[in-house]
Amino acid sequence: MSGNTLGKIFKLTTFGESHGSAIGGVIDGCPAGLSVDFEYIQQQLQERKIDPLAINSRKEEDAVEFFSGIFEGKTTGTPIGFLIANKDLQEIDYQQEKTILKPSHAHYVYWKKYGIFDHRGGGRASARETASRVVGGCFADMLIRQYNIEIETFTLQIGKVCTPYQWTELLLEKASENVLHCPDKQIAKEMLNELQNVKDQQDTVGCVVGGMIKNVPIGLGSPVFDKLSADLGKALLSINATKGFQYGAGFEAAGKYGSQINDKFDENFRTKTNYSGGIQAGISNGENIYFSVAFKPLPTLSQTQQSVDIYGKEAVLQPKGRHDICAAPRVRAVIKAMTAMTIADHLLQYLTYSK
Amino acid sequence: MSGNTLGKIFKLTTFGESHGSAIGGVIDGCPAGLSVDFEYIQQQLQERKIDPLAINSRKEEDAVEFFSGIFEGKTTGTPIGFLIANKDLQEIDYQQEKTILKPSHAHYVYWKKYGIFDHRGGGRASARETASRVVGGCFADMLIRQYNIEIETFTLQIGKVCTPYQWTELLLEKASENVLHCPDKQIAKEMLNELQNVKDQQDTVGCVVGGMIKNVPIGLGSPVFDKLSADLGKALLSINATKGFQYGAGFEAAGKYGSQINDKFDENFRTKTNYSGGIQAGISNGENIYFSVAFKPLPTLSQTQQSVDIYGKEAVLQPKGRHDICAAPRVRAVIKAMTAMTIADHLLQYLTYSK
Amino acid sequence: MSGNTLGKIFKLTTFGESHGSAIGGVIDGCPAGLSVDFEYIQQQLQERKIDPLAINSRKEEDAVEFFSGIFEGKTTGTPIGFLIANKDLQEIDYQQEKTILKPSHAHYVYWKKYGIFDHRGGGRASARETASRVVGGCFADMLIRQYNIEIETFTLQIGKVCTPYQWTELLLEKASENVLHCPDKQIAKEMLNELQNVKDQQDTVGCVVGGMIKNVPIGLGSPVFDKLSADLGKALLSINATKGFQYGAGFEAAGKYGSQINDKFDENFRTKTNYSGGIQAGISNGENIYFSVAFKPLPTLSQTQQSVDIYGKEAVLQPKGRHDICAAPRVRAVIKAMTAMTIADHLLQYLTYSK
Amino acid sequence: MSGNTLGKIFKLTTFGESHGSAIGGVIDGCPAGLSVDFEYIQQQLQERKIDPLAINSRKEEDAVEFFSGIFEGKTTGTPIGFLIANKDLQEIDYQQEKTILKPSHAHYVYWKKYGIFDHRGGGRASARETASRVVGGCFADMLIRQYNIEIETFTLQIGKVCTPYQWTELLLEKASENVLHCPDKQIAKEMLNELQNVKDQQDTVGCVVGGMIKNVPIGLGSPVFDKLSADLGKALLSINATKGFQYGAGFEAAGKYGSQINDKFDENFRTKTNYSGGIQAGISNGENIYFSVAFKPLPTLSQTQQSVDIYGKEAVLQPKGRHDICAAPRVRAVIKAMTAMTIADHLLQYLTYSK
Repeated sequence: MSGNTLGKIFKLTTFGESHGSAIGGVIDGCPAGLSVDFEYIQQQLQERKIDPLAINSRKEEDAVEFFSGIFEGKTTGTPIGFLIANKDLQEIDYQQEKTILKPSHAHYVYWKKYGIFDHRGGGRASARETASRVVGGCFADMLIRQYNIEIETFTLQIGKVCTPYQWTELLLEKASENVLHCPDKQIAKEMLNELQNVKDQQDTVGCVVGGMIKNVPIGLGSPVFDKLSADLGKALLSINATKGFQYGAGFEAAGKYGSQINDKFDENFRTKTNYSGGIQAGISNGENIYFSVAFKPLPTLSQTQQSVDIYGKEAVLQPKGRHDICAAPRVRAVIKAMTAMTIADHLLQYLTYSK
Repeated sequence: MSGNTLGKIFKLTTFGESHGSAIGGVIDGCPAGLSVDFEYIQQQLQERKIDPLAINSRKEEDAVEFFSGIFEGKTTGTPIGFLIANKDLQEIDYQQEKTILKPSHAHYVYWKKYGIFDHRGGGRASARETASRVVGGCFADMLIRQYNIEIETFTLQIGKVCTPYQWTELLLEKASENVLHCPDKQIAKEMLNELQNVKDQQDTVGCVVGGMIKNVPIGLGSPVFDKLSADLGKALLSINATKGFQYGAGFEAAGKYGSQINDKFDENFRTKTNYSGGIQAGISNGENIYFSVAFKPLPTLSQTQQSVDIYGKEAVLQPKGRHDICAAPRVRAVIKAMTAMTIADHLLQYLTYSK
Repeated sequence: MSGNTLGKIFKLTTFGESHGSAIGGVIDGCPAGLSVDFEYIQQQLQERKIDPLAINSRKEEDAVEFFSGIFEGKTTGTPIGFLIANKDLQEIDYQQEKTILKPSHAHYVYWKKYGIFDHRGGGRASARETASRVVGGCFADMLIRQYNIEIETFTLQIGKVCTPYQWTELLLEKASENVLHCPDKQIAKEMLNELQNVKDQQDTVGCVVGGMIKNVPIGLGSPVFDKLSADLGKALLSINATKGFQYGAGFEAAGKYGSQINDKFDENFRTKTNYSGGIQAGISNGENIYFSVAFKPLPTLSQTQQSVDIYGKEAVLQPKGRHDICAAPRVRAVIKAMTAMTIADHLLQYLTYSK
Repeated sequence: MSGNTLGKIFKLTTFGESHGSAIGGVIDGCPAGLSVDFEYIQQQLQERKIDPLAINSRKEEDAVEFFSGIFEGKTTGTPIGFLIANKDLQEIDYQQEKTILKPSHAHYVYWKKYGIFDHRGGGRASARETASRVVGGCFADMLIRQYNIEIETFTLQIGKVCTPYQWTELLLEKASENVLHCPDKQIAKEMLNELQNVKDQQDTVGCVVGGMIKNVPIGLGSPVFDKLSADLGKALLSINATKGFQYGAGFEAAGKYGSQINDKFDENFRTKTNYSGGIQAGISNGENIYFSVAFKPLPTLSQTQQSVDIYGKEAVLQPKGRHDICAAPRVRAVIKAMTAMTIADHLLQYLTYSK
């Protein structure tokens, strides 16, 4: 069971490796009649390529080619097959990865699990795959926008530079004013400095990225195993390099008392506070859903690393190949996509109850 | 899509409300030929009832009755149906919940989603349901123990009382010496004091509970959406009152550099450090898997709470009914069960690749 | 993957063996707010026990006990767990089945697949399991009746006694006038004679049972793999002793020309003929859906049978135990249940498209 | 839930319409390390284009392009994405289908279900989609051939020309000697004459196609809902234009007595007869599995047809476009593919029990 499909009703199946001729996917279960906003799709793929420090990372045009499921500009209800060409390939860079294991990277476990590994650029484990997720997420987004649901994402921490934990709308509105979508302009600058510092050190750095979902109808999510929070957690934890997920008060809730953070209702059934983070007992309660995701420093470094080869001999990895130094700038688009697909899937499930 | 089934090959479906005559479930996909350790099952259900402070919570015998899938003491490969009677029922306690909405509780969202709600003791949203998960988890555990896989759980934080984040085996071995399975004896005492304090204040308190999985074969987990870490996260986030999940270095990883926490291989392909937490690129790498889960303070309080009723009028909730004051003591057994089922499911999926 | 769950949104999971203390199941995904017609459920379970020839088959009360998912007479949207006790047990009858393999029966393949077999009364392979399907089917039926969808079933053939293939409503209306629900009164008598003859010969006999579904909305079914016809076929072929399924013109269509059996539209988009059987390209077209299912003679005979034991030695099976001589009388209720659940599942899937 | 994915472990997802620029699919769950026989894939796609009468049907090169999941000639365990270009497009032919409904065709139900329809060449409902199934089937076949499992298919009936129902190996061996793979050379000639006759009449004709699966291990299939026979039935009934499925004695079993067709064991646990058709109680028993599938006459005719347009007005369909006159010659390759994928999926499920 290879697990390359996400969702129960709104489904995305992806395929493709870093250095194959193309990656792509199939979106199944997208309702018919949606006007396809092709510009929006390309714009979201652009978002996934944000590169504020001119890192020497891969340059791809990421022009999506669609083969099916769209007719005269609208979805038809049949599966949407698409490809994104891999053009900027430099196979020569990856010769050493044929035999030398990269620390904290996928090579070793793929090799042991499958007995074979496409070593070029990380193969299937490359974050290149997430471009297909962005395409799927755009269709989900086009669907949920019809219900006025909106998703925004934010950089909350890069290395030691950390936004104070504040989920107020005011700050969020300012997020789009800087390239990192950090809700605080001054901290955004410090984050960029930290990124420059990391680049200079030929190192990589971890981060926390947050998201907010607005206008979710009350009732999305199933009560026991398929809680909206559990499915959202799974979707986001399936992104490369993630180490943690929290929503609402998150890990901070562990230090609180019930009398402090129970969310009291007002007379319109809105809650006066939102420590719950918009999900109660696994089901959306109509308040804003907010969450954050922790990412480890990306494991490929621009400095030499001690390692072993597949024969168990000591070996040195040279800093070839191209890679990012922090997930934050580019992963926001992926988080938005995964969030949109989770909400779309639960929205369609929810409609089966709407009689 | 009600989402009451967990797993793809090793599956548990549960049913039952807090105040129905019984709860229960069906385990499907458990391999044939396992010797059923009935004592272990009852012992794990006992673990789920640990009550170090003699809280006035529900007293249930929790004797499981099995109906199928077991013959002459062994599993037969057919589904295992079981019931656990609800005996200690006090319906009178819950009259006010018919109309008054409990803050940060399930009532409101069930009412809006389904138009109907079994208000007695939280209905389906009660943690009573987790007893069925423990039964499923025991069968999973009986399966994975055949591969020497072991799961342990620990209390890491209660309110402000916090274990220093240390995943060393020495401390873990000491965990079973105290009722909370806290890896530090002194901190365990402080935690119990904090619980007594919370009880005295008629309040509830949040917590963090950790887990460790040892001897997991290399290769469990699927590379993209069904990463072992993502499925483990979903399983644990499906437990009542969870607010977050992290594994390996977790949210701490966000503050680190790649050169600090990349896990270097030794000549036996073991890693010298384990910041990855035993899962690399979504696939187990043979090192110990460790994780932690954040729980909010349980929302039912022993003090009066201001709220509104279903007509939007202000109302006061009286502190009737029985409830716990912190998830930690009892939820460890549930975390173990959810972990065991996730590992069992991925283990069986893994066997399809073993040719 | 044990495959004891049917459906994607409206789901039934069953458990239980012939001679365990009870069988049962869990219905998940049934919408909230349905009034539960308990009398109808017991009446359908009665239909499954029709015994026109006073065959010496098992006598069970089949009183269903519900544990969850129903509150104040209505479904709540949470899973419905239920049990049906096995009371009329005669374990002594089945001693020889411990070692002697019954021809054309499940024992051998279970033994080889699982290495263990509950030999009493066929264990999990017993048609006893179908009582749980009838319960699930009743909830599906209560749902689809809200859309005016109706299901009727008919005996079309018993041994050589065969109804002329006629799907006209006139004949069908007469079906309920005889115990076999054969659409022709005279042929019904011949069928009963044939059953008496088979009983006298201590033999069993095959049959064909048909069904009709009326008032299905246009649009149920998915275009490619999950065609309504394919899912209906799977559901019905999952009933014990089935050997074939056809719908619309069925196998007769193989001998026809397109110009003969293309169904022409009238001006209201209704078809003037219905050789398609109400499903076009896998999707319901608003016409009546009709189908038939072939059953082999039940393999347990009231005469001695030559066989081998599990050591490969020749052995003689004595005609102990209780069994039916033809599937037709009792299986109609099961066919109705499987049909209702298939339609309910596709109806709920369909509602996800209804924007 | 669009239902464009087949299988639980070995999965195929397809996409594409008749007149898009390409069709394609994703194979997920194919084990790693299989040598990919590219020639075999193209040869099977050729089989799907057999055209013994030089019918004016579409001419496609059907060269498959693979994008992923294959490295240095072997499968890697990651999903295999592929495309097949649509080159021989004649859009002008399909103008009338924009508004006139074709009898017994998909147009009407797609229009009503989705509100939109790609009318060119049948859109998603075109049998063009089955080319992707053949690709998926080839990978399944490469897998199951490692277990010596073989699949053969046969033409058993075309219109009134019918092979006597005989499942003996002798006849089957002769099947490959004629283009229709009819097990009787003389009847094969009559079938070709019948096809010529149908072509001359500008009509189409129904057929029955059979299949045999040899060397299936004992134990494939799950006992209750996911019986091997039920899943095989569903897979085959999902092929365009099918009206029925039977296996073993099939509908003939309805006319038989148990004493006639119970399959007695010999001392090696092989059965002396095989009326069961290799599947007992839903589980393979080690004997040959054989089945047959009924197809209606293809609905597109080379003669004018009376119909209505989407406004309900009478209209005449002109015989434009290209189409086959009988499913039999080309559908054999599709039946083989669907059979191979069903067996592969159950084989992989079976391996999870192989303790």
